[in-house]
Amino acid sequence: MTGTAVLEAPPGVEAPDLEAPDLEARRAANLARLFEASSVAVLGASDNRSKVGSRPITLLRKYGFAGRIYPINAKRDAIAGLRCYADLAALPEVPDVVVFAIPARDVPAAVADCAARGVAAVVVYTSGFGEIDEAGRAVEDELRRVARDSGMILCGPNCQGVANFHNGLVLNFTSALMGEPVPSGGIGLVTQSGLVGGLIVTDCLKRGLGIGYLASTGNEAGMTLADAIGHMARDPRVRVIAGYVEQVRDMAGFRRSVEEARRNGKPVVLLKVGRSPDAARAAASHTGSLAGAAELYDAAFAAMGVVVVDSLEELIDLTMAFATVRHLPRGPRVGVLTNSGGLGVFSADEVFRQDLELAAFAPATVERIAARLLDFGSAGNPVDISTQAYTDIDAVAAHLGHIAADPAVDIVSVTFGLQFLNAEPLAGHLIRMAGAIDKPLLVSWISSDEAAAQRMQEAGVGIFSDPARALRAARRLADFGALAGTPVPVAKEGRDLRPGPLLAEALAAGVSEVGEARMLAALAEIGLPVPGMRRAAGPAEAAAAFAAMGCAAVVVKIDSPDIAHKSEVGGVRLDVRSAEEAGAVTAAMLDSVRTARPQARIDGVILAEMATGGVEAFIGVKRDPVLGPFVAVGLGGIFVEILKDVVLRPAPVTVAEAEAMIGRLKALPILTGARGRPPLDVRALAEAVATVSRLAAACPELTELDLNPVLVRERGVVVLDALASVGRPVEGQ
Amino acid sequence: MTGTAVLEAPPGVEAPDLEAPDLEARRAANLARLFEASSVAVLGASDNRSKVGSRPITLLRKYGFAGRIYPINAKRDAIAGLRCYADLAALPEVPDVVVFAIPARDVPAAVADCAARGVAAVVVYTSGFGEIDEAGRAVEDELRRVARDSGMILCGPNCQGVANFHNGLVLNFTSALMGEPVPSGGIGLVTQSGLVGGLIVTDCLKRGLGIGYLASTGNEAGMTLADAIGHMARDPRVRVIAGYVEQVRDMAGFRRSVEEARRNGKPVVLLKVGRSPDAARAAASHTGSLAGAAELYDAAFAAMGVVVVDSLEELIDLTMAFATVRHLPRGPRVGVLTNSGGLGVFSADEVFRQDLELAAFAPATVERIAARLLDFGSAGNPVDISTQAYTDIDAVAAHLGHIAADPAVDIVSVTFGLQFLNAEPLAGHLIRMAGAIDKPLLVSWISSDEAAAQRMQEAGVGIFSDPARALRAARRLADFGALAGTPVPVAKEGRDLRPGPLLAEALAAGVSEVGEARMLAALAEIGLPVPGMRRAAGPAEAAAAFAAMGCAAVVVKIDSPDIAHKSEVGGVRLDVRSAEEAGAVTAAMLDSVRTARPQARIDGVILAEMATGGVEAFIGVKRDPVLGPFVAVGLGGIFVEILKDVVLRPAPVTVAEAEAMIGRLKALPILTGARGRPPLDVRALAEAVATVSRLAAACPELTELDLNPVLVRERGVVVLDALASVGRPVEGQ
Repeated sequence: MTGTAVLEAPPGVEAPDLEAPDLEARRAANLARLFEASSVAVLGASDNRSKVGSRPITLLRKYGFAGRIYPINAKRDAIAGLRCYADLAALPEVPDVVVFAIPARDVPAAVADCAARGVAAVVVYTSGFGEIDEAGRAVEDELRRVARDSGMILCGPNCQGVANFHNGLVLNFTSALMGEPVPSGGIGLVTQSGLVGGLIVTDCLKRGLGIGYLASTGNEAGMTLADAIGHMARDPRVRVIAGYVEQVRDMAGFRRSVEEARRNGKPVVLLKVGRSPDAARAAASHTGSLAGAAELYDAAFAAMGVVVVDSLEELIDLTMAFATVRHLPRGPRVGVLTNSGGLGVFSADEVFRQDLELAAFAPATVERIAARLLDFGSAGNPVDISTQAYTDIDAVAAHLGHIAADPAVDIVSVTFGLQFLNAEPLAGHLIRMAGAIDKPLLVSWISSDEAAAQRMQEAGVGIFSDPARALRAARRLADFGALAGTPVPVAKEGRDLRPGPLLAEALAAGVSEVGEARMLAALAEIGLPVPGMRRAAGPAEAAAAFAAMGCAAVVVKIDSPDIAHKSEVGGVRLDVRSAEEAGAVTAAMLDSVRTARPQARIDGVILAEMATGGVEAFIGVKRDPVLGPFVAVGLGGIFVEILKDVVLRPAPVTVAEAEAMIGRLKALPILTGARGRPPLDVRALAEAVATVSRLAAACPELTELDLNPVLVRERGVVVLDALASVGRPVEGQ
Repeated sequence: MTGTAVLEAPPGVEAPDLEAPDLEARRAANLARLFEASSVAVLGASDNRSKVGSRPITLLRKYGFAGRIYPINAKRDAIAGLRCYADLAALPEVPDVVVFAIPARDVPAAVADCAARGVAAVVVYTSGFGEIDEAGRAVEDELRRVARDSGMILCGPNCQGVANFHNGLVLNFTSALMGEPVPSGGIGLVTQSGLVGGLIVTDCLKRGLGIGYLASTGNEAGMTLADAIGHMARDPRVRVIAGYVEQVRDMAGFRRSVEEARRNGKPVVLLKVGRSPDAARAAASHTGSLAGAAELYDAAFAAMGVVVVDSLEELIDLTMAFATVRHLPRGPRVGVLTNSGGLGVFSADEVFRQDLELAAFAPATVERIAARLLDFGSAGNPVDISTQAYTDIDAVAAHLGHIAADPAVDIVSVTFGLQFLNAEPLAGHLIRMAGAIDKPLLVSWISSDEAAAQRMQEAGVGIFSDPARALRAARRLADFGALAGTPVPVAKEGRDLRPGPLLAEALAAGVSEVGEARMLAALAEIGLPVPGMRRAAGPAEAAAAFAAMGCAAVVVKIDSPDIAHKSEVGGVRLDVRSAEEAGAVTAAMLDSVRTARPQARIDGVILAEMATGGVEAFIGVKRDPVLGPFVAVGLGGIFVEILKDVVLRPAPVTVAEAEAMIGRLKALPILTGARGRPPLDVRALAEAVATVSRLAAACPELTELDLNPVLVRERGVVVLDALASVGRPVEGQ
């Protein structure tokens, strides 16, 4: 099957939509049709409830799907009261979607058949492909090719399928959908593990949260997370997109989808797994100490504003928080009210841990609260109402009103423990308040009246089981509040930066490394400041070079493509102050390096103007075959080698992003002038990071690049050493 | 009332036990009697269920207390069917315990009366004392005095009281006890917040966990956390002690109790609150940057082996884990089995995050599992059984058996999500397995069959809601496994270290600071290595001193008690190499320092042998008025000032503990020889830390001490500078 095969529809089958101007547009239309299908066929339909082929029909009916359902099973006349067909060809129409619940061996031909007939999308539950072995991978690649060439959407294989709860198009077979029906609502779920998807659905049900979509994407032979997220990002009914991710197979598409969600004010909340050392080891190269795959994902997600969580519990907490709060916080200042001093102190601790702030109430707020508080309560923030909710619920409502009205408060966190008396009226107050104020109200309701909790959930008020979890969510709400509606920053100027002739020549030369002398010159070509420098093959040339440079002192360094850590083999001498000294140092250095590394190619030495003062930083580039190029910045020496104090982002970055990267370094105070140190030129460092990142984006041949050290001074920076690794360009970057 | 008043019993009242050899022994006997009372009187007894005075009688009956109950209420003849008495004097005996549910104004006289009559213990629910205002604090101090002088145990005021579920002596009034009855079991609970105590009880109930004791200690006028923990530590029925702590009022007693628990193999698991910056600020002095109160608590708890948690959820997870596992782990190697690949990867991530290890199964283990696994499962660790629990429960049991039997496995973590089919037989297997293997079995049972969960809980198998939470618990189980049964290390030699004559003289002199020259000499007296050193009042003396010292180079430093950061005022010159230079440098330094700090007292300069090479560390001492002396170690400069890479422990420490402290520094690789650096003398640094810690323990006048820098070299260390702050000794340290 190829792209043209789509146009050769078998006799009796309606031709596919020739209006689609190209494959990309057809694919987009098919993706939309997958979620808004009018007709669904089920290959391998069954009414044996223990078989997965029974689920789609059961669930389409349970959720009130209004379209046409076609069971296909050559051995049966009817299934679940519906006429059963022998094969696709026997159907009265080409269905929008075909669900596959058939053995793996029958899948390839059926997929090709669907593509040929112009089916918009297939959902392949069947396992036994790339997740099993090489042979399975080959078959899966063929499915992938058919989908790509036809524009047909292929969800799976090895997936639990998709569901749209708005129109009852429930084609996901998780057991989580077999019990109490899922109400439709503003949550879009994506998952690369069917079972984890089911767990998330169950948690949503427990918390009374409505779901809009559920997409289990399995092996992603034809439909990726990016596709699912993109569709949900475009649906105005979706308020938050959440899910479980093992890997992103299409980072560029993923980035577009996340950006679309963000522009539309929707957070993408993801539990990203795969942090085990094995995964990190696999991703590591010789600068792998800088970043394993997990760190690259973190960097990529951070740059896009993905809300990354570490646990299923945090995933559901944040999904609930984003789905239920009416307003994102305008800042990090929290007003706390509890019915226990202990829970108040505990809340204050978590405010501190999450780098939020305990709001400084206006004096009038404290006075008003104090005026109606019991003797044993506390009117300051955190407000401890003690047992007052048992005796005077109106006073409690008044306290809450004062807190919410205080302009110093951005977020209201309310916690009740063991609240049984007056729980109903209290719930009523909280429901009214959540709808009335223009700040998020986070309610923690611990071991308290269940009916009141349910009433709040039904009214759309999220209920946390613990104020610590509520406040962790508050932190992320506040973070996303600052991003929602804004575009992901793009270093647009990045794509047009080109290496100068020196680097272009080196990249074209087929070498695997470009060493200091050439690389510094190449960096100078694109505007990075480097010291004055000369190369010398031996002592006499070195002495002459010193004289010609006319500076007070130079550094002499070995020039070899095979030696990365020069100082470890005696290949660096600082503060050389005369031509004679330069000659002698060079002779001794060539000797000692040849002894230490007899196999190394040695091109001579480099004399560089000696730069002093300032602090040593480094700038690095690392290219991942899937995730693309990244830029890293940190201080040099122990900071990177031992403390791993490095910040990574996908390249290119803007100067502002580079400044933000530097701002995240733990060692930042060293640059900004702590303890009597002079403040250094962070802006110049950021400009250098941005320039290097643009170079990385523009040169797919650059697999790694280390500028180390980069001297950051009170005015400007100087790149003192650089080493590049060169490889074959990676497709699509 | 004073101590002697105890002996003057009113007529008609049995005299207290004069056999008690002293007050301490009497207090110990009374504490035991509080939890094993035969008779309880309730002051302010009521049968109005909305009054707290109704609770003790209700609960004593509900929990089957077999002793005598005496309601006391002058307005009633009978309460809850029991004869009611007008006052204590009217009772037929002196009750073991008197519960107070009377107004605050009536408490002091009644407490004194109880003490005079020889009541073993009183439990004062009443609020309105030290937590309210100064006047309340004064009354509370009087209660404290009466309790101390009489040996009577006073629980409260402002507490919810104590309960012993083994004998039904339930004198705690939390609402959490009013519903489903708490089964008795191996958990001892302590809490400084009544409501939080109630939440913990409710969580135990939800998880089917039995409770032995519950002690809400309130304002602790007479009975502290340490008393409650000590009693529980001595009861062999208690397996784990857990609770909520705001402050430790008696650190020495607390340490004794925690140590007793640890020797008896019982972990003490505490949620310690009070981390807000306000608390830290209050605790901070001029070296407060090193440690706020929270850090001091962390250090003290870490030294004792207290299991510190950050949230209520972690508290209950760990309480459950310690109460239910039959065997503590012998190591950190985890064998994982799940019914979902996603949950397996998620588990592997958490193993990594918790610094546990994914066990490397023996080849035979993998083979045996693979032989009975479905095609879509994975036999390596983590084992993914996919849907096999639906179809072949015996195979799953066999897999679990192979994992548990593998000698490379210390901990077995099993996770099932959406497990409804075959849940009962699966639960049966897990119950049998938990009892049969000599390793902990941690079961996570997510959104799965409730009845099976309950059956496992009833059989004493703890159920986690998430494998991440189970694995966080596994980490702490493994940590405590290494400590259980061992004593808290004590630097016994610490108490006999005495300052030499120089320091003794300085401490006695009433100065507030002891500066470099004197302090280095004082440190040399107790065996710490310092450089050769001379003091000089002016240039001529400095020149002569240089000549007399006979070394190649010296450092010249200003000698002033008023200047802490010498280099900021030009008060340090390195590498002075001749007598002439020494004179000239001294003249210039005195000049420039006098200009910079005209108010400072300047005693001249110090010439010190110039020590070079190695890495700069620091050793500090900080004394907290409540928590006692602490010793700190870290690398100097940016490591302490900017990165806060400092480890603190209560002083004194042994050399082994000091080595462990150094081992926790993030910068450790700098000392141990990373990236071609020479390994430095960590042992000598540890010895210096231990010596300084002993000095801190021996000299209560030393409020702070900073040895900074301490040069750590390939052989030995040298203390290059030191500054001590001196204050009034704190009582009891």
